Amino acid sequence: MLFGRLLQIDLSDKKISEIDINEDIVKRFLGAKGLGAYLLYTMLKPQTDPLSSDNILMFLNGPLTGTSFPTSGRTTVVTKSPLTGLYLDCHAGGFFGPELKKAGYDGIVLKGASEKPVYLWINDGKVEIRDASNFWGLPISETVERIRKEIGEKVHIASIGPAGENLVKIASVTIDKDSDPWRAGIAARGGPGAVMGSKKLKAIAIKGSGKAKVYDDVKFQELSTTLTKKVTDNTFVHTRRVVGTSYWIDPMNRLGILPTRNFQTGYIENSYGLIASNLKYYSKRDVSCYNCPIICGKIVNVDGEAVKVEYEDIALLGSNDGMTDVMDVAKALLICNELGLDAISAGGIVAFAMECAEKGILKDAPKFGDAEGQRKLIKDIAYARGIGELLSEGTKKASEKLGQDSSKFAINVKGLELPGYCPRSSWGMALAYATSDRGGCHQRAWTVRAEVDGIFKRFSVDGLAQFVKDVQDERAATFSLVMCDFVPLGVEDFITGLKYGIGVDIDEKEYIKVGERIWNLERLFNIREAGISRKDDTLPDRMFEEPLPMPPNGKEKVSLPREAFDRMLTEYYVIRGWNENGIPTEEKLVELGLNKI
Amino acid sequence: MLFGRLLQIDLSDKKISEIDINEDIVKRFLGAKGLGAYLLYTMLKPQTDPLSSDNILMFLNGPLTGTSFPTSGRTTVVTKSPLTGLYLDCHAGGFFGPELKKAGYDGIVLKGASEKPVYLWINDGKVEIRDASNFWGLPISETVERIRKEIGEKVHIASIGPAGENLVKIASVTIDKDSDPWRAGIAARGGPGAVMGSKKLKAIAIKGSGKAKVYDDVKFQELSTTLTKKVTDNTFVHTRRVVGTSYWIDPMNRLGILPTRNFQTGYIENSYGLIASNLKYYSKRDVSCYNCPIICGKIVNVDGEAVKVEYEDIALLGSNDGMTDVMDVAKALLICNELGLDAISAGGIVAFAMECAEKGILKDAPKFGDAEGQRKLIKDIAYARGIGELLSEGTKKASEKLGQDSSKFAINVKGLELPGYCPRSSWGMALAYATSDRGGCHQRAWTVRAEVDGIFKRFSVDGLAQFVKDVQDERAATFSLVMCDFVPLGVEDFITGLKYGIGVDIDEKEYIKVGERIWNLERLFNIREAGISRKDDTLPDRMFEEPLPMPPNGKEKVSLPREAFDRMLTEYYVIRGWNENGIPTEEKLVELGLNKI
Repeated sequence: MLFGRLLQIDLSDKKISEIDINEDIVKRFLGAKGLGAYLLYTMLKPQTDPLSSDNILMFLNGPLTGTSFPTSGRTTVVTKSPLTGLYLDCHAGGFFGPELKKAGYDGIVLKGASEKPVYLWINDGKVEIRDASNFWGLPISETVERIRKEIGEKVHIASIGPAGENLVKIASVTIDKDSDPWRAGIAARGGPGAVMGSKKLKAIAIKGSGKAKVYDDVKFQELSTTLTKKVTDNTFVHTRRVVGTSYWIDPMNRLGILPTRNFQTGYIENSYGLIASNLKYYSKRDVSCYNCPIICGKIVNVDGEAVKVEYEDIALLGSNDGMTDVMDVAKALLICNELGLDAISAGGIVAFAMECAEKGILKDAPKFGDAEGQRKLIKDIAYARGIGELLSEGTKKASEKLGQDSSKFAINVKGLELPGYCPRSSWGMALAYATSDRGGCHQRAWTVRAEVDGIFKRFSVDGLAQFVKDVQDERAATFSLVMCDFVPLGVEDFITGLKYGIGVDIDEKEYIKVGERIWNLERLFNIREAGISRKDDTLPDRMFEEPLPMPPNGKEKVSLPREAFDRMLTEYYVIRGWNENGIPTEEKLVELGLNKI
Repeated sequence: MLFGRLLQIDLSDKKISEIDINEDIVKRFLGAKGLGAYLLYTMLKPQTDPLSSDNILMFLNGPLTGTSFPTSGRTTVVTKSPLTGLYLDCHAGGFFGPELKKAGYDGIVLKGASEKPVYLWINDGKVEIRDASNFWGLPISETVERIRKEIGEKVHIASIGPAGENLVKIASVTIDKDSDPWRAGIAARGGPGAVMGSKKLKAIAIKGSGKAKVYDDVKFQELSTTLTKKVTDNTFVHTRRVVGTSYWIDPMNRLGILPTRNFQTGYIENSYGLIASNLKYYSKRDVSCYNCPIICGKIVNVDGEAVKVEYEDIALLGSNDGMTDVMDVAKALLICNELGLDAISAGGIVAFAMECAEKGILKDAPKFGDAEGQRKLIKDIAYARGIGELLSEGTKKASEKLGQDSSKFAINVKGLELPGYCPRSSWGMALAYATSDRGGCHQRAWTVRAEVDGIFKRFSVDGLAQFVKDVQDERAATFSLVMCDFVPLGVEDFITGLKYGIGVDIDEKEYIKVGERIWNLERLFNIREAGISRKDDTLPDRMFEEPLPMPPNGKEKVSLPREAFDRMLTEYYVIRGWNENGIPTEEKLVELGLNKI
């Protein structure tokens, strides 16, 4: 088969081997996310400490990575999360995945841990484990620059910053960092950078000179051409191309969905410095990932650097920390990027600390809107020093240690800080967060557009459980191909891609079934590792106990009654074929062929 | 003084003379809008038929036109409107006003009417009335091109299209049409093109080689530099520069303010093809007026032409006619531009005809969303043929002739079709429309941002009367300087400009008083000409009698109770010093020095 050759490296004993994935596994789990779930479930010893050498860290491609299929350039990182203790997959853009494919591999499985800092140098099938002592402690830019200098070529690199080295639970893995402008795909959420740091692996550098082969060259090329046109003709894509993801700041703020001051309100006053079309500091340069016709990356010039700024950055490092100037967002983001921190969790943790300061629980934390204090605190988190030491554990653990009811406003689900949509004003997101495989995440089922466009009634649970379930399943399959969240293509396009790309023929129903299989397997993993059940599929108390002030002036407030949420969750379990405690039933597992795993 | 030299031309007897405005008049009325109100009131014989040779048509500059003061390039056209029978002033961008200044004049006052088509050729103080028989009947592009060819230079031109020649009541005057891209300042509203047509004046061409002199060169230049920086640093300006005025389509649609299908709803489904950041067909070229750092003009490529598209175009020719593709808007707009029609009124009239078709009142009219039918009807209106003959009179007169209660949904105030903001969902605009000097206009007091930002409570009248009055007064003064609506400068900046620009020293209070004086003088004109009173300061019945379906799905509806509106109007009269019938009191006129006019 044209997909399934994985490079396996044990960093403890420096053993390098290969794993071949057979076609049956590919048909059942595709690649990337799904394959990662399968491998993690079967290879990881139950109850493994995520930061122990026994944890497994994988960089996985999908079956179409590196081909001409639009947005086929992304890479998936899979591991057990040190932040949540759950299954974790992160998807990042760039050119790293395609380069790995050109080097002859569909993924890298990392086991064990090195004693001394090392980096991998994968040069067309030739693999070296090199000393990285000189690079340990360096921020991302310098790491990438110096490794490239040492190798002598502009190789593609995945690396960690000081946060990962310091085992900070929200440390990211930076993929394909480019120096000018500062852009990268970032495997950000849930702390994969800390896992890499625990293995003393500073970076992976790749060079591949091969080509991603496909099953039927002519038909695949035809398909890619047609689909690329379909993408560029799509209306939504044009909005992304012109103003990028941050287009959503303005509507979210007007609709009361933009997290502000630690999710205390759903809008920020004087938002004009944050909205996408206020491109005061935006450069004319846009950036994109490998083979992507969307070109969504927008660049802000700040402090002599040029940095890509996204909706989530503006929501979490901006309004949620009380900032109203995109320049402050860009400055904070640069620090997160250089030190290797997830910007969403960093913004959320800083907001938590700011509210603790407001309530007198944490005296040394900055106040909402204090941009300089925000930057200092982000650095302290990355180096786990001062109050940053406590906060580097994430809001959940920090609030448990701080007590004083601070867990009520520790805005996370299962330990993962919430992204940029208030669940009280987007009830679909309430369910999506509560049931997401990796904790408080928006990418598994993004219900916002459907809600604000009136496909669902706002502030009603009607229809949401089915919708969230359907989207989760479809996304689970599509993320297993490593498609971009923004690509406006459908299941038919993806299965045709699979057919001509790797010669695997599955129908639409089976494709969705693959997604459902993956989703259920992840659930089984989370149950096995952390005893996840109904009690965990919930939201912070704030979301049920405090009404949310709405724009334009907070006089109107909306509530998400706990009873309505519970009803929606029960309905979701029924639709999923899970029992009322959120555990997959035996019938469901049999149906999905998971009963023997 | 450095301002006040007007060129006066009687087209009946071809007499060319000059008028000198003395400093006292400038202090009391500034220029442009205010000066126009003064001249129209004092020079026009009461009850003059707007399309008779006795009507006066003026092109007026402001005291700072053509200087380095930011956005000082606009031109004002003043006349008695054939559409409303009221005072009319229109403000247009481009380079025509500055060119007139360079030719040595601050304005042109046109009286009488030619028997045969003519055009004016003003070449640095040398004025010729030339035969225009060969150009009569031509659309705008060809007119401009052929006059330039005849003159042999790229002169600045104001001209009318077939609509003006055909005395269509919504005919515009096109100022400074440029061929590539299709952009122009358009004196659009209320039918000034028909007045020009009735005078058989096809165009005015100008060339000036002088310079706009200022009173204190050094200080004025310093001021201009400071203010230009203030403009470019402003956040709102950046939004205008990046996506233009059409930025507002998305928020207006989300907030239920976007007129849709003849103001039947406040939002349109599938709006994505209309929103600003969906720049699918937008070119990279932006256009601006003379000396303008805002650069708000955004260009759509359509049918081999490139045309500037604005918020109002998209609202009125788009959603209000049931269109969801900006390409259809651009196509309709090109026709309006070439034939010389006001796009706002054209969109409003077509919407009225479409609703008449829906209700079986007008069988030959197109249906909502029928883009081809829309284009055909716009042409028929410009040529006053077929059902276009009736509709070329405007919605008010057309509905009076059609009867069958169609006046309830003839969306106009005092004969002028409403622009792009639903008054039921913006109560400030309800009052602004009802009390605007030229009928249903948004430029005299644009309350929308203050309402949606929560400075005022939505769906409440609290504070709106005072706000509308204050803005009307300030705008009346500032439009008399011919500043752009979008320039983010304040009264202090304007009076400093006057001081160093023409050596006229007035304080802030007096500046606002000038605005109030102008507003009251226009009211006196409208009372004298059309008996305007409280009964006319109102809205179409639809706005009071039908609840407005709101986004996202129309299940929520909002109403504007007639009683609330009446209360707000009464409050407005009290604040204005007008009696309860809307007539300025003697005391108010004495206070403003208008009692002797």
